[in-house]
Amino acid sequence: MKKLDMLTPLGMAVGLTLVAFAIISSGGVMGFATFIDFASFCIVIGGIMAALLINFPLKDLKHFFHVMKESFMEEPRDISALINRLVQLSEIARREGLLSLESGLQKEDEPLLQKGILLAVDGIEQEELVEIMMAETDALEERHRKGRLIVEKAGEYAPSWGMIGTLIGLVLMLKNLNDPALLGPNMAIALLTTLYGSLLANLVFLPMASKLELKTEEEVFYRQIIIEGVAGVQSGQNPNMLREKLNVFLIDPYSKGKGEKAEEEIEK
Amino acid sequence: MKKLDMLTPLGMAVGLTLVAFAIISSGGVMGFATFIDFASFCIVIGGIMAALLINFPLKDLKHFFHVMKESFMEEPRDISALINRLVQLSEIARREGLLSLESGLQKEDEPLLQKGILLAVDGIEQEELVEIMMAETDALEERHRKGRLIVEKAGEYAPSWGMIGTLIGLVLMLKNLNDPALLGPNMAIALLTTLYGSLLANLVFLPMASKLELKTEEEVFYRQIIIEGVAGVQSGQNPNMLREKLNVFLIDPYSKGKGEKAEEEIEK
Amino acid sequence: MKKLDMLTPLGMAVGLTLVAFAIISSGGVMGFATFIDFASFCIVIGGIMAALLINFPLKDLKHFFHVMKESFMEEPRDISALINRLVQLSEIARREGLLSLESGLQKEDEPLLQKGILLAVDGIEQEELVEIMMAETDALEERHRKGRLIVEKAGEYAPSWGMIGTLIGLVLMLKNLNDPALLGPNMAIALLTTLYGSLLANLVFLPMASKLELKTEEEVFYRQIIIEGVAGVQSGQNPNMLREKLNVFLIDPYSKGKGEKAEEEIEK
Amino acid sequence: MKKLDMLTPLGMAVGLTLVAFAIISSGGVMGFATFIDFASFCIVIGGIMAALLINFPLKDLKHFFHVMKESFMEEPRDISALINRLVQLSEIARREGLLSLESGLQKEDEPLLQKGILLAVDGIEQEELVEIMMAETDALEERHRKGRLIVEKAGEYAPSWGMIGTLIGLVLMLKNLNDPALLGPNMAIALLTTLYGSLLANLVFLPMASKLELKTEEEVFYRQIIIEGVAGVQSGQNPNMLREKLNVFLIDPYSKGKGEKAEEEIEK
Amino acid sequence: MKKLDMLTPLGMAVGLTLVAFAIISSGGVMGFATFIDFASFCIVIGGIMAALLINFPLKDLKHFFHVMKESFMEEPRDISALINRLVQLSEIARREGLLSLESGLQKEDEPLLQKGILLAVDGIEQEELVEIMMAETDALEERHRKGRLIVEKAGEYAPSWGMIGTLIGLVLMLKNLNDPALLGPNMAIALLTTLYGSLLANLVFLPMASKLELKTEEEVFYRQIIIEGVAGVQSGQNPNMLREKLNVFLIDPYSKGKGEKAEEEIEK
Repeated sequence: MKKLDMLTPLGMAVGLTLVAFAIISSGGVMGFATFIDFASFCIVIGGIMAALLINFPLKDLKHFFHVMKESFMEEPRDISALINRLVQLSEIARREGLLSLESGLQKEDEPLLQKGILLAVDGIEQEELVEIMMAETDALEERHRKGRLIVEKAGEYAPSWGMIGTLIGLVLMLKNLNDPALLGPNMAIALLTTLYGSLLANLVFLPMASKLELKTEEEVFYRQIIIEGVAGVQSGQNPNMLREKLNVFLIDPYSKGKGEKAEEEIEK
Repeated sequence: MKKLDMLTPLGMAVGLTLVAFAIISSGGVMGFATFIDFASFCIVIGGIMAALLINFPLKDLKHFFHVMKESFMEEPRDISALINRLVQLSEIARREGLLSLESGLQKEDEPLLQKGILLAVDGIEQEELVEIMMAETDALEERHRKGRLIVEKAGEYAPSWGMIGTLIGLVLMLKNLNDPALLGPNMAIALLTTLYGSLLANLVFLPMASKLELKTEEEVFYRQIIIEGVAGVQSGQNPNMLREKLNVFLIDPYSKGKGEKAEEEIEK
Repeated sequence: MKKLDMLTPLGMAVGLTLVAFAIISSGGVMGFATFIDFASFCIVIGGIMAALLINFPLKDLKHFFHVMKESFMEEPRDISALINRLVQLSEIARREGLLSLESGLQKEDEPLLQKGILLAVDGIEQEELVEIMMAETDALEERHRKGRLIVEKAGEYAPSWGMIGTLIGLVLMLKNLNDPALLGPNMAIALLTTLYGSLLANLVFLPMASKLELKTEEEVFYRQIIIEGVAGVQSGQNPNMLREKLNVFLIDPYSKGKGEKAEEEIEK
Repeated sequence: MKKLDMLTPLGMAVGLTLVAFAIISSGGVMGFATFIDFASFCIVIGGIMAALLINFPLKDLKHFFHVMKESFMEEPRDISALINRLVQLSEIARREGLLSLESGLQKEDEPLLQKGILLAVDGIEQEELVEIMMAETDALEERHRKGRLIVEKAGEYAPSWGMIGTLIGLVLMLKNLNDPALLGPNMAIALLTTLYGSLLANLVFLPMASKLELKTEEEVFYRQIIIEGVAGVQSGQNPNMLREKLNVFLIDPYSKGKGEKAEEEIEK
Repeated sequence: MKKLDMLTPLGMAVGLTLVAFAIISSGGVMGFATFIDFASFCIVIGGIMAALLINFPLKDLKHFFHVMKESFMEEPRDISALINRLVQLSEIARREGLLSLESGLQKEDEPLLQKGILLAVDGIEQEELVEIMMAETDALEERHRKGRLIVEKAGEYAPSWGMIGTLIGLVLMLKNLNDPALLGPNMAIALLTTLYGSLLANLVFLPMASKLELKTEEEVFYRQIIIEGVAGVQSGQNPNMLREKLNVFLIDPYSKGKGEKAEEEIEK
């Protein structure tokens, strides 16, 4: 169900293109060579890795690339369709009883909705039903927080290791001032690690960690609709009342008009 | 109903005028040319854009310019008039019954007040009435927080990308020290991105994000008066008591005297 | 009732004297001229103003100077006298009934105490009485927080605009390296804005904002004594018990001995 | 039961190897000598020690090395096995009564589980049982927080003392500019303390403090399963229901499939 | 009862010795003279004082030296002895009645314990007893927080005023570049204020403020044991149960074995 979130690679491409453009516009195509230095790259990436190895237990680190990949993925969530589905379930439940929902469960592709309906059919009490679904959502939030923490920490260590690399370069340069002609180029190389660290923090780790946080918020929001909807279905709430209640989740932040239009469309 | 908030463009004009004045006073009108560099401008603006593209999902980014525009707008809110209106509604409700309020609803131009009265007329219980109106206000606050977050993040990325631009410039300059006469000018250009980043953060993004936060606080405050007022109207509270209760919202922070005068004016 | 808080101007005088002393001890009286530069001053002050204009709505900005003035004022509050007064009121209330308090109300110069007694005399229930007085205190705290926010923001923008001024100066200086003799003096002028920004932040805005916060805390503390006292008066609590209860507010932080002496004095 | 956490020394080895590699790649093996300076090392380590001596009481400082050692240790915790054990206990309790659990207690190697069962056998009420076990877990969390605080503070003081060392070096260097040939090497030595401080912060103290926090979180998580399990055992909950309830703790963050497989394995 | 906390002066001595050692090892004994500059010292200390004068009301400032002195003091607290005493009181209370505790009160040297027993003997209700003792502890915590705030603020202003001093020195130096031979020494003097500010922050104010916070936490912890113990004594709890309950406070963070031994010793 997940598809590529184009914005993440697009943003990175835009950022790198701009850096390339800035280099070419001042230093020409030949300027590129100045900005690639393998040892500098190793110390920044390696230093971040070293700090993360100390910082995280193995079972969290194993998820690092998986978490990074998550920020390139998005799960399209159609809130209107979800509300329609919930209202439909509530109509069936009122007409044919809660038990009749069990037959359609296999077709449900949202696991939390499936589980919620199953619990409702099992005759579990409303309060406990909501509690179980909330507990699972809290656990999901907590796990995402932990995964995100690795990316955040990488974004914190990146500039620090950039500075450590520059300090090493500066000390070496200052110790060997015998050839003043090399002063500039050596200093340039020393500064590269700071540049790498800043780029990794501001073009990769920090925006990614922030996007992962927003994705988690969105998923939790989606799950809240499911939880409120299933609770309504179970308690046999009037389908129109339920639609009214769930529609407050629909409102689009900065386009009241459109939001209302969307509501009307659903009501049809 | 919204009108231009003159202070936002005024502040920007003041800031830019001062920067211009500082440049002219030291460097003459010719100094301006030094401060305009297209490549430097591209790397800062583009870098911020790149980071925001990674940081936010498309549906949030689409609101970016809308949110920016919000900080140029203000919605004049007359709290005294609102309190008078609420007290008037409470008088009508006590005299002619809650149902009589329905007829005047069309003329109400504050949507939350309209909705609240409608719910009260529908005979919904007080607790639930307040809960629904509060839920809508919380949702509004949350949506505004999300919109503001983009501006805040732009203000965080701006100085970082300014520094990245300066690092690129410094590396290029240091690598090519063959012409010492160019050292100064090249260094000047390298510093421009840091200047751009600082100006964008301290003259545009950070003050704007802060103003948006204050506007949201003010809107929530206004809505709280409506919620308290509608609750009072519904429960058939004595109009004078209601006025007394709502007047605490009126008090002007640093001018007790004036605040009290304002109260008296309303009471007439 | 308010009087000048000598410490605020004294602190500023001490700070400025020290800066002057440091300048004279190194650079002689002639050194002063170096530190006064009108354009530098304009860019820092103007930049802060520009950012504040964007950051705050007009109705908050209008209070800026008033808020600044507040940090030069103090309201002497005699907690022992207040407790004595509250105990005295409680004695009268027990001897002659709550209604007898109304006659002495005109002489009360603390508005919150006046209001509280009035509400108690009106026969309002204890819980609601405390709630109303707390609500007013919360509102006062919130308004003071908003006023203080402008001073805090000024303290945040000051060093940023100092740095912007220095960047402008550096770019101009580097672009025109033709006369190396001017390098030093131009650099000196460029640094002035950073100095101004730091002084404004660390000698004016930040300590002022912090003092305003402490003043608000103190006022809230004083009001809590009034609220507890009025609640005790209304419920007809034993005057000795009430004194005992209110005396816990009296204890002086770092001088137990003295604090206890103070308590004893009151008990006489 | 504890065993070596390989990642902590591995991360440090990776970090130091990279620093060595960066030095050799630019400065050759001879470059190493430049980076070792006893006086610089003393001022950074000694300064951190001095600040910690002032910052912490002796009884906390005594644990410093113990806490550091903790971040090299890990306690393998098998959550599946724990859940199986708890379900097994619940089956015994239902079949043979709570008292029958006492005989097997000696073999239990998890102290909290042992204590919990003992309390349950003693017939203490459920609410109090959970409260006691939670209180002990809170106390553990608090003690770990205090121990971690020393490492965090060391990570805060490290860069500051690095900077103090560099300032001392710079002042000495600038005072004695008589031999310009020594300018570079002296500056290099001055920068070493900043490098040491950054490495200590970013390769030792900060990642360690962060790992200690994660370890505490994990231990608290493990204890929560025990608490929920013992509560279920005491209240005579159906073993299958209990397994269902405890299995929510099992889910692996980024591999739903695998997590479910793990669940199935347990159910066999 | 208070005695000198040797660690605070020891830490300062260690820090200053290291700074001296670093100076001598690079600059010889003669290097010391370079690091002492009266004007530089005045501007840092005076600037901090000026900011504190503005920041705090007189009645808080008066406690400044007292608070500083507190961090050189420690109050030895024997938790085992306290628990033994509380259990003993509970035995007496059960054997001879609560009133019999009054006779031994004069010998009690812990004021809170004395007060608590007195209140219990007076027949006050348990809930109110705990509330009064908690309120006093909260007040103590709040007062300590306020005292600590002055030291924390001094630690914040110290580096800022160090930088202000350096800026003044730099401006003076740059303005008078006529004698390049003085460039180095003047720059050295300019940097001294930054060094002083850093040392004051990282060797005096920040570690002291942090120690004061830990001391307050410890005192509050000790008082919680008293409160729980007095509550147990009043309610006539079984002395063995009370000891069991209070022993959870005893456990030593990183030495389970030892902690348990300590428990056993007490139980004898």
